Amino acid sequence: MIRLNCDYLEGCHPAILRKLTETNLEQTVGYGMDPYCQQAAGMIREAFACPEGVVHFLVGGTQANATVIAAALRPYEGVLCAETGHINVHETGAIEASGHKCLVLPQFNGKITARQVADAVAAQGDDEHMVKPGMVYISLSTELGTLYSRQELEALYTTCQELGLYLYIDGARLGYALTAPACDLTPADVARFSDAFTIGGTKVGALFGEAVVISNPELNRNFRYMIKQHGGMLAKGRLLGLQFIALMEDGLYFSIAKKAVAQALRIREALVNKGVPFFIDSPTNQLFPIFSDAQAEAIARDFELALWERVDNTHVAMRVCTSWATPDAYVDAFITAIEKL
Amino acid sequence: MIRLNCDYLEGCHPAILRKLTETNLEQTVGYGMDPYCQQAAGMIREAFACPEGVVHFLVGGTQANATVIAAALRPYEGVLCAETGHINVHETGAIEASGHKCLVLPQFNGKITARQVADAVAAQGDDEHMVKPGMVYISLSTELGTLYSRQELEALYTTCQELGLYLYIDGARLGYALTAPACDLTPADVARFSDAFTIGGTKVGALFGEAVVISNPELNRNFRYMIKQHGGMLAKGRLLGLQFIALMEDGLYFSIAKKAVAQALRIREALVNKGVPFFIDSPTNQLFPIFSDAQAEAIARDFELALWERVDNTHVAMRVCTSWATPDAYVDAFITAIEKL
Amino acid sequence: MIRLNCDYLEGCHPAILRKLTETNLEQTVGYGMDPYCQQAAGMIREAFACPEGVVHFLVGGTQANATVIAAALRPYEGVLCAETGHINVHETGAIEASGHKCLVLPQFNGKITARQVADAVAAQGDDEHMVKPGMVYISLSTELGTLYSRQELEALYTTCQELGLYLYIDGARLGYALTAPACDLTPADVARFSDAFTIGGTKVGALFGEAVVISNPELNRNFRYMIKQHGGMLAKGRLLGLQFIALMEDGLYFSIAKKAVAQALRIREALVNKGVPFFIDSPTNQLFPIFSDAQAEAIARDFELALWERVDNTHVAMRVCTSWATPDAYVDAFITAIEKL
Amino acid sequence: MIRLNCDYLEGCHPAILRKLTETNLEQTVGYGMDPYCQQAAGMIREAFACPEGVVHFLVGGTQANATVIAAALRPYEGVLCAETGHINVHETGAIEASGHKCLVLPQFNGKITARQVADAVAAQGDDEHMVKPGMVYISLSTELGTLYSRQELEALYTTCQELGLYLYIDGARLGYALTAPACDLTPADVARFSDAFTIGGTKVGALFGEAVVISNPELNRNFRYMIKQHGGMLAKGRLLGLQFIALMEDGLYFSIAKKAVAQALRIREALVNKGVPFFIDSPTNQLFPIFSDAQAEAIARDFELALWERVDNTHVAMRVCTSWATPDAYVDAFITAIEKL
Repeated sequence: MIRLNCDYLEGCHPAILRKLTETNLEQTVGYGMDPYCQQAAGMIREAFACPEGVVHFLVGGTQANATVIAAALRPYEGVLCAETGHINVHETGAIEASGHKCLVLPQFNGKITARQVADAVAAQGDDEHMVKPGMVYISLSTELGTLYSRQELEALYTTCQELGLYLYIDGARLGYALTAPACDLTPADVARFSDAFTIGGTKVGALFGEAVVISNPELNRNFRYMIKQHGGMLAKGRLLGLQFIALMEDGLYFSIAKKAVAQALRIREALVNKGVPFFIDSPTNQLFPIFSDAQAEAIARDFELALWERVDNTHVAMRVCTSWATPDAYVDAFITAIEKL
Repeated sequence: MIRLNCDYLEGCHPAILRKLTETNLEQTVGYGMDPYCQQAAGMIREAFACPEGVVHFLVGGTQANATVIAAALRPYEGVLCAETGHINVHETGAIEASGHKCLVLPQFNGKITARQVADAVAAQGDDEHMVKPGMVYISLSTELGTLYSRQELEALYTTCQELGLYLYIDGARLGYALTAPACDLTPADVARFSDAFTIGGTKVGALFGEAVVISNPELNRNFRYMIKQHGGMLAKGRLLGLQFIALMEDGLYFSIAKKAVAQALRIREALVNKGVPFFIDSPTNQLFPIFSDAQAEAIARDFELALWERVDNTHVAMRVCTSWATPDAYVDAFITAIEKL
Repeated sequence: MIRLNCDYLEGCHPAILRKLTETNLEQTVGYGMDPYCQQAAGMIREAFACPEGVVHFLVGGTQANATVIAAALRPYEGVLCAETGHINVHETGAIEASGHKCLVLPQFNGKITARQVADAVAAQGDDEHMVKPGMVYISLSTELGTLYSRQELEALYTTCQELGLYLYIDGARLGYALTAPACDLTPADVARFSDAFTIGGTKVGALFGEAVVISNPELNRNFRYMIKQHGGMLAKGRLLGLQFIALMEDGLYFSIAKKAVAQALRIREALVNKGVPFFIDSPTNQLFPIFSDAQAEAIARDFELALWERVDNTHVAMRVCTSWATPDAYVDAFITAIEKL
Repeated sequence: MIRLNCDYLEGCHPAILRKLTETNLEQTVGYGMDPYCQQAAGMIREAFACPEGVVHFLVGGTQANATVIAAALRPYEGVLCAETGHINVHETGAIEASGHKCLVLPQFNGKITARQVADAVAAQGDDEHMVKPGMVYISLSTELGTLYSRQELEALYTTCQELGLYLYIDGARLGYALTAPACDLTPADVARFSDAFTIGGTKVGALFGEAVVISNPELNRNFRYMIKQHGGMLAKGRLLGLQFIALMEDGLYFSIAKKAVAQALRIREALVNKGVPFFIDSPTNQLFPIFSDAQAEAIARDFELALWERVDNTHVAMRVCTSWATPDAYVDAFITAIEKL
């Protein structure tokens, strides 16, 4: 049985295991104050062209999102997001658990626009009976595998600047976004057009770990207190630093992500050739084909995909994911299976 | 420079790295639902003689404490603990951040008694203007390296049962407690005389990870929702299962802990022989000698200890820690340094 | 200038002032434990035919909602409500501030259905990554002045019972609902088909005050702790009891509400006669006519209404409210103004 | 049975009832934006010589404390207070419910000192594993009826200024403090030496209501959102404004408080003459005599006092309270009873 249902099925890139093994018995200070974390932070600042950015390493995505958002907002403020946003749907109310409302906007292709943000702020109208928007949350790539264009992101950021909102980018799949052929954003753009963003390690080669990069110094004030309070300060923090060193060395993070996107696009082409429609047209490592129940059943004999949504009585949208770890043989086998449908 | 200042300086026991390496490219389901986590849970249930216990794996101690306590308490309830309790002092208010007051009791040797618990409940007197005690938190070994006796623990548990309180044991250093010669508690006692307890991996051989063992089924209701909301649900959950399998195999957890305690006791003997007094007399892997400033300075040339507390104008209490990773050579060198004082 | 913009413009019914004046210098115990609160609770139990109901008196509606909801839910649970629900829109995130997500359902006429509730629970599917529905919140009359029929309410309650959800009715305008000619619900139905409901005093004759009536004993456990923690326990609690005694005596609450609804229906008839369309067709004390800007301007010379929503470039929906305190002369004057449009 | 057990037994000063009656059927805007609230705010600014102060009116003390503290602190910050502080003991964890730890300091006579504050900040040492002090809370008069001297208050404020902490004064009994002969503080001092303070109405003549006066504009930012979220925004806000107008007119607040303190001092003198010792020597409207059980029993035949604390097997400390409403005849009767002991 070949699993293509998500991008966190395997352990980590071998380069990371090597790094952990080499340094295993060294003694370092804890809680992310070690030289490896410092080195990794420097490499990230360079890769994302943000020399003033402050980098923190957290274990997981829900933790990173909850910590950044709680650090940014006053108690009466909420975070604008797409209705499909991960924080709104799949984090068991972690944002609300720290007291903040997700101010939900209708999405199109998993995305929201500068105009929607401006309208939402206008509609709230500084009425103290309503939650005040304090931040905009977007994900890149989105939960539907889609991308913001440079123009869209810049517009969002400019609007946020004008309206006094923070813009935060959840980059759980940032690698798969930035290396997609359809993406016109550079790493530097991500840093320039946001107040904070994450670089997801868990889904792109690491055992675990999300780097939180904060460009806006206001948001960084006492941020480590927030990490600790939210249970995100790893005692042996160097484990995070070491993993990101391995990922940043020679652009490994980007090269493995690029490979996975290329694999997804090969699968996409096979689906297109076969005339399989898509629930959404996504240009990154996640695909959302719509299969007839018969097709889905045929595929399920050898492949595990994720059920996304039932479309009608006889069709389902499935999610297919590639990752840094997907062997070419799996992709070939899946393409063959598609062709046989 | 030799570090003996804490017990989370190194990576992990080599058996764990081996296990991670062997399984690295396997595909498993996420979020702790994989076979490795199931296997590890079974091994823990056996080692702690609690066949009905439910085992969850979380990344870190603050997370584990905050999640268990928030799962146990109603909004108006608080958690009784020693003033030196980790949750009260060193978790940046994570308990309060989930809405609950630490109901602080004076400590003696880092411990609290059944009598104190009963008195605190009586003093609250079900007065709705005061926070209602809902749980008792103790740590084993304590933050001061001390131990509860079997009789003390049983008395606490009986009192909690009578008063309708949960008893929760923070076992961040459980290995170093249970393997100390002075300890009359067995693993089975820990499970039997509590509603929930943790088995600390981070400080006893793992890269990271705390096993939360819940004996009281009421406390387990929808517990995984709580883990997820608190940011403690690791995507690649098997990393936790694999580590605890390695630790439970052939009692590795206990044998490495026992070794570390034996090392600490050798150091303790050297300090006693030298006439160095103790801030507190601790029988586990943490020692708290009081040095004159001159002595402290001499030691600081080659050894890094932790400053615990200034005792008077010319003396300081320091913390010395051994761990599963402390080489005998470090212990020998430190003993020699003591003898030279 | 005559104000018809909301139903909390004046003080209180004279019977209440009399009662407060008569008892002013009596000494009673505080915090709602006085004989007046007991008496008022008894009168409410009788009026709503719920002999087992427990009655608590709180100062305001946001407080009452936040307290009931926080008392009902576990940390990972949320409250299902219409997108127009007061808790979702106009309470500055008070529900989220106590850690709970408003699980928003599309509304029709300000209402939600049993079917929507069942579908939402099915969609969550006990997936621990998503907030678990724990309660349904409805308002009666709704924020749009509409009513649930007996059949609709019973269906909601039956569904909640089947799915293990609490059903909570925000009765800030309960009087104006139950006395509307179009309402087929009795006070007893409200108690029977809910786990808890409020009887709004603020908008129906009192200076302030909401009675929270809890039929489900599980929800009442330690409820007074919740009131105190949420800042809702009035020191001189008898002020609430006294007001509700006055309101329950000889059915004053219902007779003054009935009068206000009758006034609104007179205004409604005038609007219909004039051919003014409605934003929503509401049968209680709130009306939502759509005026042309010219009409709105004409009215604004003598009357203050509430701007509800701009409908198009030349039309606005306004809210017209009557209350227990609206003089007939105001209604007559407003009807004359409508006729002149 | 004469009650002298607390200072919120009766309704309100007749001047307030008159004011409410006179204005009862007026129509005003809601939520504290009415002209009466504005007028009351102006009178308070004048009485407390703080022309720049912003005044908000809230219903009760727990609400006021929770709202001010939550508005002031960042999530990782806590509030320094005496162990006897109302927020720490008698508000059912309302501060923790909004996420903040009470950082408890040992008290002497119910008070804390500038030195204790400085030491606590030094001990925290900006260690991100510990809650950061962000505010100091004191009560005036204290829960034990004692007073801060001008010098003590100024020292506290200066220390707070130096350390970047807010100083907040809970003035639930401010009237009884400022009018005590032993008090060397003026109303202007209270405003000058704090960032925010409350003027308690509930215990000093009002039906209910606390005025929150904010001198530090930073603390006032979006404060009305905080009030609303905490359920403290009274719909008919003018009820608060009207009460404070009545209390401020011709210094009524101060004259009625002065009378109550004078009554308490007469009782105090009788107790001293009788040789009754005190649990604490308090110079305001609360007295804490220690009676033998026989004495307490004798008194209990005609008078209800509050049990404060059992002192030993045969003695109890009781609380005796006078208030604006205490008739001289009650005081005379109580003095006679003391003389007869």
